[in-house]
Amino acid sequence: MKHEEAFLEDWSELARFGAIRGTQGVYRQAASEADGKQRKWFAGLLQNYGFTVQRDAIGNQFGLLEVVPGAPYVLTGSHLDSQPTAGRFDGAYGVLASAHACFRIAEELRSKQTTALYNLAVVNWFNEEGSRFKPSMMGSGVFTGKLALNSALSATDPHGITAQEALDKINERGSMKPFDVASYAEIHVQQGRSMEEDGISIGLVDATWAAHKFELKVVGDQAHSGAALMEDRRDALLGAAQLIVAARELTDSYAPGKLHTACCELYLYPNSPVTVASEVDLHIDLRSPSADVIRTAYASFLSRIEAIKQQTKVDIEVTAEHKWDQNPYPNNGVELARRVAQEAGLSHDRVMTVAGHDSTNLKDIAPTIMLFVPSTEGISHNVHEHTSDQDMIAGLNHLTGVVRRLVAGEFTQ
Amino acid sequence: MKHEEAFLEDWSELARFGAIRGTQGVYRQAASEADGKQRKWFAGLLQNYGFTVQRDAIGNQFGLLEVVPGAPYVLTGSHLDSQPTAGRFDGAYGVLASAHACFRIAEELRSKQTTALYNLAVVNWFNEEGSRFKPSMMGSGVFTGKLALNSALSATDPHGITAQEALDKINERGSMKPFDVASYAEIHVQQGRSMEEDGISIGLVDATWAAHKFELKVVGDQAHSGAALMEDRRDALLGAAQLIVAARELTDSYAPGKLHTACCELYLYPNSPVTVASEVDLHIDLRSPSADVIRTAYASFLSRIEAIKQQTKVDIEVTAEHKWDQNPYPNNGVELARRVAQEAGLSHDRVMTVAGHDSTNLKDIAPTIMLFVPSTEGISHNVHEHTSDQDMIAGLNHLTGVVRRLVAGEFTQ
Repeated sequence: MKHEEAFLEDWSELARFGAIRGTQGVYRQAASEADGKQRKWFAGLLQNYGFTVQRDAIGNQFGLLEVVPGAPYVLTGSHLDSQPTAGRFDGAYGVLASAHACFRIAEELRSKQTTALYNLAVVNWFNEEGSRFKPSMMGSGVFTGKLALNSALSATDPHGITAQEALDKINERGSMKPFDVASYAEIHVQQGRSMEEDGISIGLVDATWAAHKFELKVVGDQAHSGAALMEDRRDALLGAAQLIVAARELTDSYAPGKLHTACCELYLYPNSPVTVASEVDLHIDLRSPSADVIRTAYASFLSRIEAIKQQTKVDIEVTAEHKWDQNPYPNNGVELARRVAQEAGLSHDRVMTVAGHDSTNLKDIAPTIMLFVPSTEGISHNVHEHTSDQDMIAGLNHLTGVVRRLVAGEFTQ
Repeated sequence: MKHEEAFLEDWSELARFGAIRGTQGVYRQAASEADGKQRKWFAGLLQNYGFTVQRDAIGNQFGLLEVVPGAPYVLTGSHLDSQPTAGRFDGAYGVLASAHACFRIAEELRSKQTTALYNLAVVNWFNEEGSRFKPSMMGSGVFTGKLALNSALSATDPHGITAQEALDKINERGSMKPFDVASYAEIHVQQGRSMEEDGISIGLVDATWAAHKFELKVVGDQAHSGAALMEDRRDALLGAAQLIVAARELTDSYAPGKLHTACCELYLYPNSPVTVASEVDLHIDLRSPSADVIRTAYASFLSRIEAIKQQTKVDIEVTAEHKWDQNPYPNNGVELARRVAQEAGLSHDRVMTVAGHDSTNLKDIAPTIMLFVPSTEGISHNVHEHTSDQDMIAGLNHLTGVVRRLVAGEFTQ
């Protein structure tokens, strides 16, 4: 019980960083002042439990415990950064649960209750959210060699501050070199409501939804908002509005749960009350459990784009694209996690993840297990996000069991 | 001819302030650095012609010539501030034409060719555009007592800078007291294409279109853009997009020219690629030559708002409104301007103005005449805005004739 109490005590501490007064939420975007403070606190916590703290060149924060000199590391963690005005659980729960799972296993190793084939490492990945600097999952992207360090460091926020400048401001850029990862485990809140509805404590994530994300530039022409004849206008914001409505109509043409679409980010110029917008940049996502649905939906959307160009006389260009097919997690990892849940008497089931996670990057370089705990009503990226203490503790105990087996070398690909 | 040449020479000078490289356009929003520079240049020009330069507490810039000690002033002018990436003609043409009309009349007065009942004043109104600080027509609003000085000075731009701070930065706030205005005349580019199509040199503006402008706040709920079930979402940006499309559909339900609608300004929060927007603020305009059309269109739009609230589960609130009926200019002023055009052999006709102008404020405190010159294809608030030298000179000569009669006391209400 003392492990669980220690976790909940530290959890209350962590929730204070970037806390939004009058809510249960937090505002701690990547490399913000609040992120800097929680990182300092987290480093102290790791050190108190005997872990060595290091940071790499993109600001990933590691807590390392070498028990088998020279051996690869079992790595476990998530991210402490948040969306603007977000919940306190997204990412942060996984980081703290990983730390406490490792603290407990370190204690078992010291008292010879467990044997180790590998070393132990906890990680707080930099900028998973991507709300301040793009792309998302930046730290794990650089760590796994999918994203160039220089391009990540030179990404700018909406105020033109680079990731490098922001990391330096909170003194969180380091020089740690990459190390061998024996296996990776991550636990996260579900951000959906299926587990709550099905009464499941532990989600065994077996695949990621397929996705197609793209950025569009809509180009019209500045004009006086009152005096210009309506038939002369080339209104970029009208074109953008029609794209947003079209994306939602596309979703509604499929059965529920088959296609999720969203437009949540949009910049317009000149954004003056009396001048028709000449340019709008917006970001649209299509997501589906089926890669086929993504392909047909994208084709439909392209033909809608053509129709909107005709109708509103604006130009519309796809300026960036990023897509992935439905993407499985290794089945022997899912099975290992299932056995741990079974032995602990925790209700469990396979689930898919709609959202991307750092494990999406890690699973391409190391055997990876992804776990979920329930999220009340699936509320996410919202100050009302909630997971009960009981569910957090169940997840902590399950993750501890998983990491124990990873350290013992039970999971290799 | 020397008056015309002097005008065109100064016109070339003026177009250099805030010029956008590679275009014919300018970027000189109210109290920007470029606005500060053009104001210094304009003050020098006025002084060179023997006018005294003063500024009032909201930064209106006046060039005064007292010829009849203690008498009221005939005032003429427009505004030098621009929209972002705008044309060089909007406002600036009227200010420089007014100055040169007054320079010529001052010369005639000195050489006793003309007699004066009133004094002469040129004005450059502060912040007519309203793109940086709201409301628009700010300087003339304060001058005519329609807008409180303190509320104008405390208006903030999107970076939180107040109008007072911005004016102080360019040292353009003064202490000149209000003075009696005998009459007011303003000339402006049309910002529509009817005069060009009808082959008219001088537009005698006889009324302003009716308008209803309102700001809307759309409130939804933050959610994960991928993971949240579509049926759970309350997407403020989807609600806003439907409002923008609805405004255009409303226009299309009337005959061309009966109803202009626009949404050109929109702010969303949190504007993150993976978080459904919880809040969007947007600005919508309805304009029509008929106040009845505005009333029925507004009623239709309100019922569309209700339908969009139902359909998208967002809340929509009208947070600010500003409206006016079709608003005539005094008929004896229109007739005076008609006679001047006729005597000079300039083609002319009555036109309405869709856009608001500083004269819209002035006509409520003094006998006011509003004049237009043609604008190529009606392009406005756009770097491609254009009026030919010939049309500018015709307007200058006509305005000079009008101001000559005003100074002689031919126009009172």
